[in-house]
Amino acid sequence: VRDAGEFGLIERIGRRLGDLCAGPGVVLGTGDDAAVVATGRPGAVLSVDLLVEDRDFRRGWSSAHDVGVRAAAGALADVAVMGARPSALLVGLVLPPDTAVSWVDGLVDGIAAVCRPLAVAVAGGDISAGAAVVLSMTAVGDLDGLDPVTRAGARPGDTVVVAGRLGGAAAGLAALEAGRVDDVALSAVITAQRRPDVPFAAARRLGGLGATAMTDVSDGLLADLGHIGRASGAAIDVSVARLPAYPGLAEAAAALHLPDPAGAAAGWLLTGGEDHAVVATVPAALAAAAEAAGAVAVGTVTVGSGVTVDGAEPAPGTRGWQHF
Amino acid sequence: VRDAGEFGLIERIGRRLGDLCAGPGVVLGTGDDAAVVATGRPGAVLSVDLLVEDRDFRRGWSSAHDVGVRAAAGALADVAVMGARPSALLVGLVLPPDTAVSWVDGLVDGIAAVCRPLAVAVAGGDISAGAAVVLSMTAVGDLDGLDPVTRAGARPGDTVVVAGRLGGAAAGLAALEAGRVDDVALSAVITAQRRPDVPFAAARRLGGLGATAMTDVSDGLLADLGHIGRASGAAIDVSVARLPAYPGLAEAAAALHLPDPAGAAAGWLLTGGEDHAVVATVPAALAAAAEAAGAVAVGTVTVGSGVTVDGAEPAPGTRGWQHF
Repeated sequence: VRDAGEFGLIERIGRRLGDLCAGPGVVLGTGDDAAVVATGRPGAVLSVDLLVEDRDFRRGWSSAHDVGVRAAAGALADVAVMGARPSALLVGLVLPPDTAVSWVDGLVDGIAAVCRPLAVAVAGGDISAGAAVVLSMTAVGDLDGLDPVTRAGARPGDTVVVAGRLGGAAAGLAALEAGRVDDVALSAVITAQRRPDVPFAAARRLGGLGATAMTDVSDGLLADLGHIGRASGAAIDVSVARLPAYPGLAEAAAALHLPDPAGAAAGWLLTGGEDHAVVATVPAALAAAAEAAGAVAVGTVTVGSGVTVDGAEPAPGTRGWQHF
Repeated sequence: VRDAGEFGLIERIGRRLGDLCAGPGVVLGTGDDAAVVATGRPGAVLSVDLLVEDRDFRRGWSSAHDVGVRAAAGALADVAVMGARPSALLVGLVLPPDTAVSWVDGLVDGIAAVCRPLAVAVAGGDISAGAAVVLSMTAVGDLDGLDPVTRAGARPGDTVVVAGRLGGAAAGLAALEAGRVDDVALSAVITAQRRPDVPFAAARRLGGLGATAMTDVSDGLLADLGHIGRASGAAIDVSVARLPAYPGLAEAAAALHLPDPAGAAAGWLLTGGEDHAVVATVPAALAAAAEAAGAVAVGTVTVGSGVTVDGAEPAPGTRGWQHF
C-alpha cells in the first residue's frame, strides 16, 4: 500500500465499497472526522482512531498515562469537531503478552482522566495479544438534535477561527526525536506532544453557534484547512501572525540548535499535527461570537481553491502527515 | 498481563474505571457482547472486535477475502446477539507498509460480502501502519425500539437453543495447524474456520420473539454458556446428542489421524470457538417458536450454577479460549 498512499487507499476503498459507504442508516458516511449513524436525533456520532506503538507513540517517550490521555483526547476530538457532545468510548487494546499490568493501569487512568470531566463513559472494548501495542479508540458523540458540522460547509466570506494552540506537539516530537526527553527547556513542548489539550468546550460552542465547517488539527493546519477547502469547494487564506502558536516555539527551536529557529517554529505552527486544536469556519457575522466562545479569527474563506498563508503559496514540505 | 489473564484484566480495568463504565448515556456498559449507548430508541448498539495477524488469522491460511468475511461476520454477530439489527461497521486497519494493495482489495470485498445482504453500511474507519496486520471492527446495531437481549436474563425453566453449527471452525483450525490446507477431505471444516456462517436471521427472530439471554459462540459453547449462567445466576445443562454439530467432525478427526476421533469431535463441538453460532435461552413456552425461527433446543436452565453436559461435569480442558 506504500505506493497508493493513505488517502489514495481510502479513496480506493470508498470506490470499491460504492453504495455500502452510505445507506438508509447513515446520515454521514466516510470522508469526514466521524460517521453519523442514525439511531436518534439525528444519530450517534462514531469515530475510530488507531494508535500503533513505535509509529504513533513510544513507550520510552511517554508514560502509559500520557498514552491514554493522548489516545482518548485525539479520538474524542474527532466527534467533538462534528459539533457533537462526546458521550462514550470503546477501547480496543492489542497488548504484547509481556506487557506489565501496571502499564495497562496507567493507560486506563490516562483514558479516564480525559473522560471524567467530559462525562464520557468507557462503554466497551476488546483485548487481544500481539507483538506491539495497538490502541483502537471508538469515540461516540451525541448531537442532541443539532445537525453535524462537516468539513463541507465553508462559504466564501466566512471567517476562519482556531481554538487551542498550534505547533507544540510537533516541537515536542522534534525534542523527543533529538533525545532531549529530560531537557527542562523543552518540557513544555514535550508535554504538548504527550498530552494534547483539546479545546472541547470551544468546539461545542462553535458547533452550537453555527460553525459552517469544523475539524481538528491532526495532520497539520495547512493540510486540515486543505481538507475543509476541498470539501467545501472554496479557498482559504490564513494570517500567520494571528495563529495561536504554542508558547515558546522559537525558543524550543533554538534550544534544539536548529539552523533556522524562526523557520522551524513557523513550520511547526503551519504543519505540525497532533495538537488537536480546533479549526472552524463561521459566517463573518458570527466571528465576534466565535471569539467569545474561545476561538481566535485567523483568516478568511474566499472563492477559488487551495490554502494560502498571507496571500501566498505555502512553502514546499508543508503537506502534513500520511501513514505510508 | 500474562498472569492476570484476559478476563482478570478486563475485571481489573472495570474496577479501576468504576462509574465511568456506565453513565447517563449508557443503557448497557461493559460485560456483554456489545454496549448500548443511548442515542435513540433505546440506543445504538456498539461493539469492537480486534483481529491480529498470526494470532486470530494467518495470511498464509486464509485469503484476504476470507479474513474480511470472518472479521465482519464475527463483529456483526456481537451486535446481532443483543437482538439488534446490524446497521453499520467502522473498520480500523493496521497494515505493514509492504502489504499489497490487492490484499486490501480482497479484505474489503470480504467485508462487503457480509455487509451487503444485511444492508450494513461501512460508515467509517481509520488506517495506520504497523509490523503486523490488525483489524479493529466496530459494529453498530439498532434495536428498533426493542430492549437489548443481554446474557443476564436466563431463568430456571428456560430452554437453551442453538442456531447455526458448532465445532467446524475448531476442526478447521486443527486441519490448518496440521498443514492440511489443500486436503479436500478437510475442505469443509477449513471453510468453516475461514468463513463462519453466522445465523443473523435466526438471532434477529430469537430476539424478537422474547429470548431471555443470547450470545454467540466465540469462546466455545461451554465457555459461552458459562457466561450466560454466571450473568443470570443460573445453571445450564445441555444434551450433547442434540447439539447441532458441523457435519463431518468425526470424519475430519479421522482424516487428521487423531488417536481418539470421537473424543476430538466432541471436544470441538463443546469447546470450539469462532463458529459464531448463536446460543439463546427462551421461556419453555417459546421453545417451539424458537425452533420455527431456525434454532434447535439443546438443554435447559436450572437452579444453581455451572454448566453440565448430560447432567455431568464437562471433562477438563474445556474452558475455552483466552488471549493471554
